[in-house]
Parts: sequence; structure tokens; C-alpha cells
Amino acid sequence: MRMYGLKSAALCLLALLLFAGAAFGAFVSPEVHSDRRVTFRLKAPKATSVGVSVQFSRGQQAMTKDSDGVWSVTLGPAEPEIYEYEFVVDGLSVTDPANPWMKFWQGTAKNLVEVPGEGAKFFAEQDVPHGAVHVHRYRSKSLGVTRGFYVYTPPGYETSKDKKYPVLYLLHGMGDTENCWTVIGRANLILDNLIAGDKARAMIIVMPYGHTPRVPADVRSIGRYGAFEKDLLEDVIPYIEKSYSVSADRKDRAIAGLSMGGGQSLTVGLGNLDSFGWVGAFSSAVPRGESLDRLLAEPELINEKLRLLWIGCGKNDFLFEANTVFIERLKKDKIHHVAHISEGGHEWRIWRRYLNEFAPLLFR
Amino acid sequence: MRMYGLKSAALCLLALLLFAGAAFGAFVSPEVHSDRRVTFRLKAPKATSVGVSVQFSRGQQAMTKDSDGVWSVTLGPAEPEIYEYEFVVDGLSVTDPANPWMKFWQGTAKNLVEVPGEGAKFFAEQDVPHGAVHVHRYRSKSLGVTRGFYVYTPPGYETSKDKKYPVLYLLHGMGDTENCWTVIGRANLILDNLIAGDKARAMIIVMPYGHTPRVPADVRSIGRYGAFEKDLLEDVIPYIEKSYSVSADRKDRAIAGLSMGGGQSLTVGLGNLDSFGWVGAFSSAVPRGESLDRLLAEPELINEKLRLLWIGCGKNDFLFEANTVFIERLKKDKIHHVAHISEGGHEWRIWRRYLNEFAPLLFR
Repeated sequence: MRMYGLKSAALCLLALLLFAGAAFGAFVSPEVHSDRRVTFRLKAPKATSVGVSVQFSRGQQAMTKDSDGVWSVTLGPAEPEIYEYEFVVDGLSVTDPANPWMKFWQGTAKNLVEVPGEGAKFFAEQDVPHGAVHVHRYRSKSLGVTRGFYVYTPPGYETSKDKKYPVLYLLHGMGDTENCWTVIGRANLILDNLIAGDKARAMIIVMPYGHTPRVPADVRSIGRYGAFEKDLLEDVIPYIEKSYSVSADRKDRAIAGLSMGGGQSLTVGLGNLDSFGWVGAFSSAVPRGESLDRLLAEPELINEKLRLLWIGCGKNDFLFEANTVFIERLKKDKIHHVAHISEGGHEWRIWRRYLNEFAPLLFR
Repeated sequence: MRMYGLKSAALCLLALLLFAGAAFGAFVSPEVHSDRRVTFRLKAPKATSVGVSVQFSRGQQAMTKDSDGVWSVTLGPAEPEIYEYEFVVDGLSVTDPANPWMKFWQGTAKNLVEVPGEGAKFFAEQDVPHGAVHVHRYRSKSLGVTRGFYVYTPPGYETSKDKKYPVLYLLHGMGDTENCWTVIGRANLILDNLIAGDKARAMIIVMPYGHTPRVPADVRSIGRYGAFEKDLLEDVIPYIEKSYSVSADRKDRAIAGLSMGGGQSLTVGLGNLDSFGWVGAFSSAVPRGESLDRLLAEPELINEKLRLLWIGCGKNDFLFEANTVFIERLKKDKIHHVAHISEGGHEWRIWRRYLNEFAPLLFR
């Protein structure tokens, strides 16, 4: 192959650079320093007051303006973690236009920033083999709509087609979408790191969309668990088993989720013991009342069929009490389970850790 | 499989609903009506002036506030198309926190809204079989960094493993990233629709990251074409040919791109005639001077090796004159090419159309 010196090509791009110059803000935001401090910057020449609210710093922090109209502040050092932040300009919460990494939730938007270091390595992009994330759109016959799911395949998947992989169906929370477990939850990187360290089996993770709205505009309403269950069992799983090299054995199929997705995992998992051998519920909206009675009607069957029933909840979670009641019920009914009570609240910081603890237990 | 009535489960989610209630804005923005008008909404109770700037409406349009502090305006009807918009709150441009579909470019952020209808169907999600989009991270040995590329596989790819697919390497513009051709350019849906209509061959599209910054913070600088070329030829293409079922024949390999990516396509494509049989340059930063002389040094060899050299540019593009000069040079040197001069400027509206016209010509 021929290679050319490209001086002139670079020159001819001058027009492009000039074109971009007007819009190009010659700054980075957020800028994470090696000492784990973070500089936030926002161009707002006309604003009279600009601050930043970031999870690692209590309250709103004032920013100061330079002669170009760029407001900035350096905060921290922060413990290694992923943090949400937002700017507050003259009383209005706004996002950082220089940072495309965002969390959308129920009509709100916040930016995310990662402070790397010890304690955050398990979800960081490290120099290990990386799997791939696959974005699918499918026609759900059961729901009568086109919607999406994400799939993680582990490193080496493409070149080992004879192997049948186990599958974890991993569900998001209310108001989230099928991209949240990768964009915010880092499920792909968590598994890359676990697999590289020989701490988890190579597995496929399927991340479906959990809402089943009755009206199209209400896209992130909880919808009906029964409709979700039907879509998962009759549309998503058949699609996966046709398109990916996976085992269809119950013992190679797990279901787990957070919050609403935890409730769905318990409902679908315990309700379909012939389809799932492993169930995880993170900070979950646990089933109660008659639904729960039906799900737990045959404790011995559950103990016979399930390899693992894993319940995680933080002590500061608003669902902690409900989970405590649920765990007591499991004990009373002598249903085998792992109750993982941790610090923390209803937050992604916890759910990344739960996945990191749950995934190594699967398919053993 | 057992199915349960889920009344109680729904009841138990009341806590979740209440939890979400505080943040949940009970409105949709943007709301696209069946008459192709669009309602924009933003909650900003403390603001004194809120407007929206949207591409289909000249200038900033004032919004009015309701008793909940939600500002809104209904505009249009608009021609079927994808449009950028932003809110302007007391003089500050801000994004729509209810709309996660965004375009980030050189430190700026704008939201996108799709008005469906005739003329926009070729890039709309229609009721046809859908391919998948695959998100990869890879270690570039040639650049010494970990970076990403996207891959589109056509419908049926997973279930026809014996088939070797042709590949289009599709490059983004300056300041863009590897996700832009799917997120904004709709390359995946354009191909889904073309393939469903039997207008294009089923092909794989690889969308690499085109910047090769010298310093990590300067992530979206143009960088060096030579470094990009090396990464593409020595890292990306080998990865693709190892992981996907593709033909490695020059006649089954195309390269095309927009703006900076058009310049890269011409440079890499014409510079490696043994590797690429098809070249497309959309609104491109054309090579000039000595670089161009070297690329066009052997017109007969180009005519012998290339199946297609396709140059598209809009009459209002700031690169139109440079493209005109380039096309004149091709004529003078008797190099076979297709010059596709259209209306329009340097914009995604045009590039979606160019891909829709270019892809059907490939691999015939």
C-alpha cells in the first residue's frame, strides 16, 4: 500500500478549521486532573451567576468568569467514582454542552464525569480485551411496536462460534432505557474486567427495554409487568437464541435488574422457573401481597430449580424496608437466597457494585 | 410458563411512582403532531424570557409560560426532515432536558427532532427488517490508544454466516465521532430501507473514529491523515476481517466520508487502490497541491482499479468551490468519476441523501 506525505492535505483543511473556529470552544469540560480534582467550564458571557452542582461536593459551588465569558471552578479531590453534575445559570439547571456523556431520567438531564483510581477500576476501561455492545431494534409481536434492546458479547465471542454462551438478562429501572446499563451502569466494562481477571464466566448480557406504555407518548411509564414478561419470553429471548450463539438451558439463563427491573426480575424469574436458573434483584421494587404469595407458593420447587436468588439493597434506599420484609418472608418460607445488605441508597454507584458482585456467582 | 395477575405488583410500585413524581415532568418535548407541527416545552419557572431556535423556523420563537412554570410553543407545519433546535433562556442557549437525542459538535450541543412523512421516509424507522449496530472498543497499536468504531450489519447477517459481505468504510466529519453516522446520519436505517426495497446490496458498514489527536485532551482535533490511514489499514480493517464475515477483496471494499472524512476517503482510497474499489467524497475537504498530484499521478491505474469515484457537493457548501476545482482536475486528467452537484450546504440533511444515492451504486 502506498503512503503519501500529507502536508498539503493538512493545509487544505485550513478552511475547515476556520469554519469550525467560530463554534469551537478552546476548552475541555469537565477536565479531570491527575490529583482527582475536576475543573468544570461553561461559556455564558451574559450570565450574572453560574454555579455547578456535583455529587462529590455538597451544595452548589460558585464559578468565576474570565475575560472570554467562560465560567470555571476546580473542585475536589474526589474519591474515584462516576458523578452526576449540572450547571446552574441564574437559577436554571442546564447541561454541559462540551460533555456528551449524560444521564436522562424522567424529563431531567445531568452530565456525568468519571474520576479514575483505586476503587473505580472495576468499571473503568482498562487495558484488557474488550467485548462489544450491540444495538438492536426489533418488532415486538406481543406489544405491537418496534423497540430496542442492547446486547453485550464478551471478548473472543466473534471468533469462537461453536461455543454456546450463558445469558444474563439485565433489566433497567423506571424511567431508564435499554442503554442505561452500558452508558451509566458500565455492564460491558465490568464484565470485560471480571473476565480478564478470571473472576466471571464469559457470558452474554441482554439488556431489554422494560417499559410497556399503553400510550406511545408515555414512553417511560412503568406499564404492565405481564406485557413486559410476554415481550421478553416471546419476542426478545427467541430473537437472541436465533441470532446469538447461546445456550437455551435454564441453568445457563439468568435474570436480574434494578429497582423496577428488580421487581420484574423477581416476577418473571420466580414465575418461570423452567426458564431461569438464576435471579438477582438490586434495590428492587419487590412484589407484595397476592402476587408475592403466588410467586412463592411452592418454596421447595424454587429451591430445587433456582441456583441463586440474590437480593441486594442499600440501607439508605427508600425501598430498604420493603426489601427487608421480603427477605424475612424468604427466611420464613425457607427459600434459599443471598441477602446482600450494603451501605448506600437508590443509585447507580451501588448497582455497578452489585453487578460486580453478582456476575461472578453466575453459571457456576 | 406460568403467568400471574399482577395487580398487587402494580400497587407495590406506588412508592416508586411517588419517588419519581418529584422529578417527573408530566409533559413530552418535543411533541410532533400528525399535522407536522411541533410543540416544544421547557420547565423554567424563574426565567423571564424563553424562546426556541429550530431549523425549520426562521429566528428565535418566543414561548409562553403556564401556571406550572412550563414554557411552550407550537411551530410549523415543517417539511418532513430531521431538525436541530435549542432553547434560549434569558439569552443562554440550553438543551432540552426531556430529549436525549442530541448532536454534539465542537463544544456545542443541540437537540434533534424528526418530523416524519414523505421525503423523510428513506431515513425513517419503517416496518422493515432491521440490521444491528455494534459498538466496539479496540486497542489501536498504530496510535497507542484505545478508541472506538461502530459497525452496521444488515438484516439476516447473524443467520447467514457462510456469506461474505462487502464492506463500506464510512467516515465522519471534523468534530464528529464514530457514532454520528448512526445517531444523526441514520446510516443504519437508510440501509435497512434500501435493502428492504432491493435497492442496495446487503453490506456491512464500518464507521471508524477519524481524529488522531496528538494530545489526549484535544480529542476532536483533525490530527494527521497519515496516522488515520495507518490505524484504518493496520488496526481497524484487520479487526473487522477477523471478527465479521466479510470479503477481503478490493472489489468488495468501499470508502466514503463527509467533509474531513471525504478528504480522508479520497486520500486513503486513491492512495491504496489495491485495497479499495469504490470511493465516495461527500462535501469533502478535497486534497490539493502536491498531495493531490501524488494521488492522481497515474490516471489510467485509477480508471483500471476503481469501480466508482463519486463526488457530491451542495451549491451552498463553503467547500463547493474547492470541489468544483477538484472535479475540473478529474476531467482534465480523464479520471472516471460521478460528480453529483446538489442543492444545499454543509449539513447532515444532504449527507443522508448522499448516502442514500451512493450506497445503491456499490458492489455491483
